[in-house]
Amino acid sequence: MLNIDYLSINEKGHLSIGDHDLTDISEKFGTPIYVMDEEFIRNSCKKYVNSMNKHYGSKAMALFASKALNCKEMCKIIDEEKMGIDVVSGGELYTAIKANFPMNKVHFHGNNKTPQELNLAVDNDVGRIVVDNEEELKNLNRIAFSKNKICNILLRVKPGVDAHTHEFVKTGRIDSKFGLTMKESIKLLEDIHKFKNINFMGVHCHIGSQILDPKPFILAASIMVEFISKIKSKTKLEVKELNLGGGFGIQYTKKDPFFDYDECIKEVSIVIKEKCKSLKLPVPYIYIEPGRSIVGQAGLTLYKIGNIKKIPGIRTYVSVDGSMADSPRHITYGSEYTVINASKANIKPNKLVTLAGKCCESGDIISEDILLADPEIGDTVAVLCTGAYNYSMASNYNRSLKPPILMINKNQLKIIVKRQSLEDLISLDI
Amino acid sequence: MLNIDYLSINEKGHLSIGDHDLTDISEKFGTPIYVMDEEFIRNSCKKYVNSMNKHYGSKAMALFASKALNCKEMCKIIDEEKMGIDVVSGGELYTAIKANFPMNKVHFHGNNKTPQELNLAVDNDVGRIVVDNEEELKNLNRIAFSKNKICNILLRVKPGVDAHTHEFVKTGRIDSKFGLTMKESIKLLEDIHKFKNINFMGVHCHIGSQILDPKPFILAASIMVEFISKIKSKTKLEVKELNLGGGFGIQYTKKDPFFDYDECIKEVSIVIKEKCKSLKLPVPYIYIEPGRSIVGQAGLTLYKIGNIKKIPGIRTYVSVDGSMADSPRHITYGSEYTVINASKANIKPNKLVTLAGKCCESGDIISEDILLADPEIGDTVAVLCTGAYNYSMASNYNRSLKPPILMINKNQLKIIVKRQSLEDLISLDI
Repeated sequence: MLNIDYLSINEKGHLSIGDHDLTDISEKFGTPIYVMDEEFIRNSCKKYVNSMNKHYGSKAMALFASKALNCKEMCKIIDEEKMGIDVVSGGELYTAIKANFPMNKVHFHGNNKTPQELNLAVDNDVGRIVVDNEEELKNLNRIAFSKNKICNILLRVKPGVDAHTHEFVKTGRIDSKFGLTMKESIKLLEDIHKFKNINFMGVHCHIGSQILDPKPFILAASIMVEFISKIKSKTKLEVKELNLGGGFGIQYTKKDPFFDYDECIKEVSIVIKEKCKSLKLPVPYIYIEPGRSIVGQAGLTLYKIGNIKKIPGIRTYVSVDGSMADSPRHITYGSEYTVINASKANIKPNKLVTLAGKCCESGDIISEDILLADPEIGDTVAVLCTGAYNYSMASNYNRSLKPPILMINKNQLKIIVKRQSLEDLISLDI
Repeated sequence: MLNIDYLSINEKGHLSIGDHDLTDISEKFGTPIYVMDEEFIRNSCKKYVNSMNKHYGSKAMALFASKALNCKEMCKIIDEEKMGIDVVSGGELYTAIKANFPMNKVHFHGNNKTPQELNLAVDNDVGRIVVDNEEELKNLNRIAFSKNKICNILLRVKPGVDAHTHEFVKTGRIDSKFGLTMKESIKLLEDIHKFKNINFMGVHCHIGSQILDPKPFILAASIMVEFISKIKSKTKLEVKELNLGGGFGIQYTKKDPFFDYDECIKEVSIVIKEKCKSLKLPVPYIYIEPGRSIVGQAGLTLYKIGNIKKIPGIRTYVSVDGSMADSPRHITYGSEYTVINASKANIKPNKLVTLAGKCCESGDIISEDILLADPEIGDTVAVLCTGAYNYSMASNYNRSLKPPILMINKNQLKIIVKRQSLEDLISLDI
């Protein structure tokens, strides 16, 4: 089994978080339900904060990539853990505003921010707007001028690093809708002084998603410092800040290698400092943007088995009361998960099954060809590592109701996002 | 260009629906927005109703597969067009209830209906519950008994017909989470008299999705009549009803062949009648379940271009103000669409571009390698044939707001589903 430190097996043989039997939780709160361990989230935050501080020093900040899981409670936790936050839409920014998140610690991303979104960001004095392209720079300057404000920006750059990850989530490449090539960036920066309401602070890059190898991060850091040097020589601009983006992968199953974030940050820090020294540059303030690695392993989804269908010689379908609507990553990316029969966690997984959802679609599979311990109707099943990109990508397909998120913090159980109701479902229908 | 009869080009060269200039609509109502033509929907309904009547007679009903687009207004239109409705969840059923849809014309599907859903269905005297498996039959019988009711059911059967369609949407095969094999069905039907609160009416099959060839439908109909005969000989049960499911495909692009529904229904009708005659069976009441082919071509999505990025030698990204959150079929299935620059509909499409969304994800592409007429920032773009499986599959990924649905009926413009607001977005957050 995947090593998730907050999970244990209690005397009944049930999967538990601390004293909380997950089969009891499924009875009490209903299924499907996302369950998260708050301490795991906070520890993940602390690891990044401490690692940055230890290896790079005080000129560094970790930002939570909130697209992984954006809700008011997450904003609150991230603030308490002294991290910043990265938002990618007006909706994510609005959530942070309503959670009273300090706006100076917000970075706002996106390849096509709308005028409404830029207005919201400028009105709220967002810390850094990560400008994607020239058109956006013009719009932002105009909006800032109209409000008599100066906006601190980073420029999104394509370092051209291919992180050899999933085809859908490569973003450091040149063939990307995000950012500008280095050549385009320099051309734009040569004229940046013309944008009177813009304060250029630095550059941002992002090389991909679910990366489990430090090498592309180190390579990107090295390339970006060289680029900072080039900006200086071509434009005389000082690049004070470098945002290295996110993409730190997690183990979903035992097949995924363990990725040592601390070691990666250490090596990235060394490369930046050495490179700056050799290029005679001041060391920039750096940001990193972990999302999945903060919340992914902190959450699991509980379902109940409603039906088991053995198709002799073919496969056994175990159908649960959730679906691709709450677990969209399998049908979208072919993602794999570790699944445990929470009602029989003391039994070695022994039955090869396919965990199917209840949506009216054959592709509605939650996890294919997995081993489960003696699955029976009524058992509670836990799909691990669903804290990132499950609630945030959930739909109402088949008019499914979005599950709630239950946060566990030692003895405290707290619903942080309510279950959608049937009334909610039709609230926009006229 | 794809032939969609409600679309025209006005004197300004803009794409229009009747007198309604779609660029004006995008200004007035904002983008992204789903726009639908009510007459097209009603005509699609009428075609099915008339075709069934003409070729099969009065013992036939078309049911709208509402998972394609379930909202209160659609339920109302479907009722007015004298069709029934098929629902696949408590949420879809609840919507139909709230729209005062006649419950006797509702068929309730699903491979794993929950006890809550079955209770809702029984309480509301749903016309047919399409029972998927033995466990469900037991639950349903128990629930009906407790409420002193008799439930009319169909049994979901796997005819084993492979419709040679997309891997994700094949459902007639034996390797499917849906239904029972013929052998399993007969075994269950031999004991059906033991279920005192169940009234067995007939059988249901569904062979796939987006099928553009009548042959698998004809084959499935033929196999199902043979099966009805087998049920009679083995169990003495009379199968009064046969639900042949849906899967009628539509043209998304010119590459898709035209599918003649009327011809298909005609051939299916002939096969059923001839087969019944030769097997000395009474002709069953039949149902079909079109969903996509009722609403798919009736809708389009309007976006505004916010940014154009030329990557020399690679591709040009045209970024719009929507995303995979409102247009999920490309990232989920690799689906293709026909896209028109609504602001320049009189110009021959001349630029090869990739239409990208605004989500913070490289895979967030709406349509890849399409020709657009001189795209410029501010142009309104129409993605055609998004009436099915776009709103219904939409998510809030990146905290995107779900677009509204605007229904056009000649001179009348009517918002039938409101745009989600930022307040709606955080309404479940605690």
